[in-house]
Amino acid sequence: MESTIQLFDTTLRDGTQGEGVSLSVEDKLKIAKKLDELGIHYIEGGWPGSNSKDIEFFNRVQELHLKHAKIAAFGSTRRKESLAEQDANLLKIVDSGAQVASIFGKSWDFHVHTAIQTTLEENLAMVSDSVAFLKRSGLEVLYLGEHFFDGYKSNPEYALQTIAAAQAAGADAIVLCDTNGGSLPDEVYSIVSAVKEHIHITIGIHAHNDCDLGVANTLAAVKAGATHVQGTFNGYGERCGNANLSSIIPNLQIKLGYSCVTEQQLMTLTPTARYISEIANMSMPVSQPYVGMAAFAHKGGIHVSAILKDATTYEHIIPEKVGNKQRVLVSELAGQSNLMSKALELGIDLDQSNKAREVIQKIKELEHEGFQFEGADASLELLLREAMGTIEESFTVESFKILVEKASDRGNITEAIVRIKVQDQLILTAGEGNGPVNALDNALRKALLPYYPDIMNVHLTDYKVRVLDEQGATAAKVRVLVESTDANNAWSTVGVSSNVIEASWLALVDSIRYALIGKQPIESLNAERERLGLVNH
Amino acid sequence: MESTIQLFDTTLRDGTQGEGVSLSVEDKLKIAKKLDELGIHYIEGGWPGSNSKDIEFFNRVQELHLKHAKIAAFGSTRRKESLAEQDANLLKIVDSGAQVASIFGKSWDFHVHTAIQTTLEENLAMVSDSVAFLKRSGLEVLYLGEHFFDGYKSNPEYALQTIAAAQAAGADAIVLCDTNGGSLPDEVYSIVSAVKEHIHITIGIHAHNDCDLGVANTLAAVKAGATHVQGTFNGYGERCGNANLSSIIPNLQIKLGYSCVTEQQLMTLTPTARYISEIANMSMPVSQPYVGMAAFAHKGGIHVSAILKDATTYEHIIPEKVGNKQRVLVSELAGQSNLMSKALELGIDLDQSNKAREVIQKIKELEHEGFQFEGADASLELLLREAMGTIEESFTVESFKILVEKASDRGNITEAIVRIKVQDQLILTAGEGNGPVNALDNALRKALLPYYPDIMNVHLTDYKVRVLDEQGATAAKVRVLVESTDANNAWSTVGVSSNVIEASWLALVDSIRYALIGKQPIESLNAERERLGLVNH
Repeated sequence: MESTIQLFDTTLRDGTQGEGVSLSVEDKLKIAKKLDELGIHYIEGGWPGSNSKDIEFFNRVQELHLKHAKIAAFGSTRRKESLAEQDANLLKIVDSGAQVASIFGKSWDFHVHTAIQTTLEENLAMVSDSVAFLKRSGLEVLYLGEHFFDGYKSNPEYALQTIAAAQAAGADAIVLCDTNGGSLPDEVYSIVSAVKEHIHITIGIHAHNDCDLGVANTLAAVKAGATHVQGTFNGYGERCGNANLSSIIPNLQIKLGYSCVTEQQLMTLTPTARYISEIANMSMPVSQPYVGMAAFAHKGGIHVSAILKDATTYEHIIPEKVGNKQRVLVSELAGQSNLMSKALELGIDLDQSNKAREVIQKIKELEHEGFQFEGADASLELLLREAMGTIEESFTVESFKILVEKASDRGNITEAIVRIKVQDQLILTAGEGNGPVNALDNALRKALLPYYPDIMNVHLTDYKVRVLDEQGATAAKVRVLVESTDANNAWSTVGVSSNVIEASWLALVDSIRYALIGKQPIESLNAERERLGLVNH
Repeated sequence: MESTIQLFDTTLRDGTQGEGVSLSVEDKLKIAKKLDELGIHYIEGGWPGSNSKDIEFFNRVQELHLKHAKIAAFGSTRRKESLAEQDANLLKIVDSGAQVASIFGKSWDFHVHTAIQTTLEENLAMVSDSVAFLKRSGLEVLYLGEHFFDGYKSNPEYALQTIAAAQAAGADAIVLCDTNGGSLPDEVYSIVSAVKEHIHITIGIHAHNDCDLGVANTLAAVKAGATHVQGTFNGYGERCGNANLSSIIPNLQIKLGYSCVTEQQLMTLTPTARYISEIANMSMPVSQPYVGMAAFAHKGGIHVSAILKDATTYEHIIPEKVGNKQRVLVSELAGQSNLMSKALELGIDLDQSNKAREVIQKIKELEHEGFQFEGADASLELLLREAMGTIEESFTVESFKILVEKASDRGNITEAIVRIKVQDQLILTAGEGNGPVNALDNALRKALLPYYPDIMNVHLTDYKVRVLDEQGATAAKVRVLVESTDANNAWSTVGVSSNVIEASWLALVDSIRYALIGKQPIESLNAERERLGLVNH
């Protein structure tokens, strides 16, 4: 049994055909670098014959000097009744500088007649000629049998002829595609087994997720002898997406004992998947297997009690193997053990007798209003510290005002007035920005900087808004999550209100209060002199 | 081969153990009604021994007079070293009024020793006694072997003894649970096959999705002889969720020919899944198989050309069978055929020569700024109509102002001033609300109502905010999607800006403009008199 599986990532090509996914060349280069570090064997960079934007990627990826991954360019077999040597699409693949060509051709007689409208023989020639031309041009060639499983079910002899033609023309691998995503694992297993009787070169699988079986179909193909798997990170792709590599890789390696990447590389799976979702600006479902925020998160009281005794009671693998970690969720289902556990995680020792019950009560009330502390650890920590009485008020908020003006022939003007107190000093500042939250952020910092110069290092890096009760429409409660960093740490805070500005303000204020935990304000006289510009830097 | 599969939905119990999912009793009742209409056979309403809130559900669900579904109450086998007749948890199941008890017990010797800390014999007695007691109390009893697959892999004889004990005590079905979610389809198949040698009553499967194989494992169990499947809608549940019924039902029925619900009921699958996601306030991934917005959405130019010729080229089933529909996405990958198709869908005939290219250009520019017309059909239609010159300006916006004030000891005050023109009449109104968008909405309606009384029927029903470039933090662009209805239709509009208020305003204005397509303002003199209160209603 071949124990090494080649991983082929098409996030940058097939992945971009998904709804809502759009990657710039810069985005693609960043992702390619991460994929290479993870140990991916092939990275498909784009379709040069279709998107001229992709040509820039193929040029610039050379400068990345990837350690490990080979770059592939995607494209179609030559057009009917023409010469491979003159086919614009194939020539663009050759010119791209990619080491590998992944070309697709028709395997399904129905498509040959209906979609490209030619004869079965001409299609076979299109396959042969294209593969042979690319081999002559010095590329490694992966031939993708589009709609292979549907084609085989409809006319097995013809489907086999198409891939035999590619093999005879010198292809390095035959990749069988379930392009519609409608096949089932047993079908995939038997068809791949049948193909293995006729193909002696590497067999690959390219599955889609239309039946929620993309991962299962990929594993079934591997069981039948495929040693090359194609997919996208986080399952991006047309319709229901491609087979999800972030689930396939740990299944193959940890569950089935195949070798794909090193153990160290596997530990970068979760950070890689999350990084890619950020770059792609697609929110990752918290429940995503292996790499999701909730993949190893425990909420039910009984589960939590059990895992605190032994993690294998409720965890199928050790989360750190894929770079994830166990989390205990605080929520309305929380008994005391969840909260104690979370507090310990945050380095706070809750007294068992009454503080814990008080805090649970307060959390339940806030959750009832719409606050959710899952994903807002810093706000939760502030709450716990307040309950314990271990926090000093770095500043208090008196009021804020926002003014937004937009005339149809001008840009918008947004100004904020913020009134706060540091110790007993009242400070009134104004700020402006391109939006209300930006303006409030600027005004607040202006007010605090003379007293807490460290504020300069604090940056907001992420800002998420969620309408909690969408049917409440414009009067609905809004929950804002803000992520902040300084040089060393990152933390998240939350704010809830039916007024989106107020919700943002609350999250912002919590973020700054968190950054200022344990900090003392500069002696107020100096600060006053700073503010009046009487001190030089 | 038994061809009917029993569907058991635990969205209201196991589903609520997922991160971010929280259902009130009202929510549960609404969902139960929809599940019953779909044809679900069992609805698990809660865990009365653990959540007292659930008792209210069991009381009130009787009033719904469900046509079809049986209500089940969940719970544990009796505590060790006690009597079933006196076990509080079991008594609550009996008192709940549910017709069915679904109780779980330990199948894994490791858990018996570590989690509940008793002997293997006592555990068998706990299983027997509990099942027998519930049968004597007149309930249908489903016995769930918790961690059955891990238990069987560790100590097959003991695992089999636990379920044999339940069978002997009179259980109506044995449900095998992959509680950790770590099993693979082949394992599930062979273990369920082994169980079938010992169990003559109904065998069920309760899978989890930690390996992205919840659906595959469920199908493997059915292949091996299970005739009862448990899961949640949209795959909600602890960690990576339960096996997803919205994928399992069409796979079983359309792909494998089993009988679960009627064909008409199956056509309500998509609306049911989306309704449940709205009630649960969980956004459904557009790529969700079968029921997602993008499950039959085509973006790549080649795919679209092909499906316009014949849908089976790229669709594995007819979308209407599950109540979904084909969609053509307009995006940067769009060639002319996508846009023509979308325009036709909207009833607009684009002239092939230059209008189409102009509009594509405009769309690409707007998309570059962050507008996405996927999911905002009304904004796209307005754009197309403007390009065609077939739209009359119902009103024009001159300017707006927003003022938000919040003092720490008072609630917030939010006021809007809106200045618009209808024909040549300048109208200035003020509105207030609990937030800026609400205030703008109120001001705008006040301005338009005397001229367009139909505005009264237009309601905003959904309001979504998404930060487009989260790393831009508080200066990031924000995209707002608004859904509106009148008595007959629903439509969606979009607005983008780095100012969340402006983005909301743009979506709001588009929504009203869409509602006013083809409407004429009331003759302005009357309108003026209306506004001054000189006309009685």
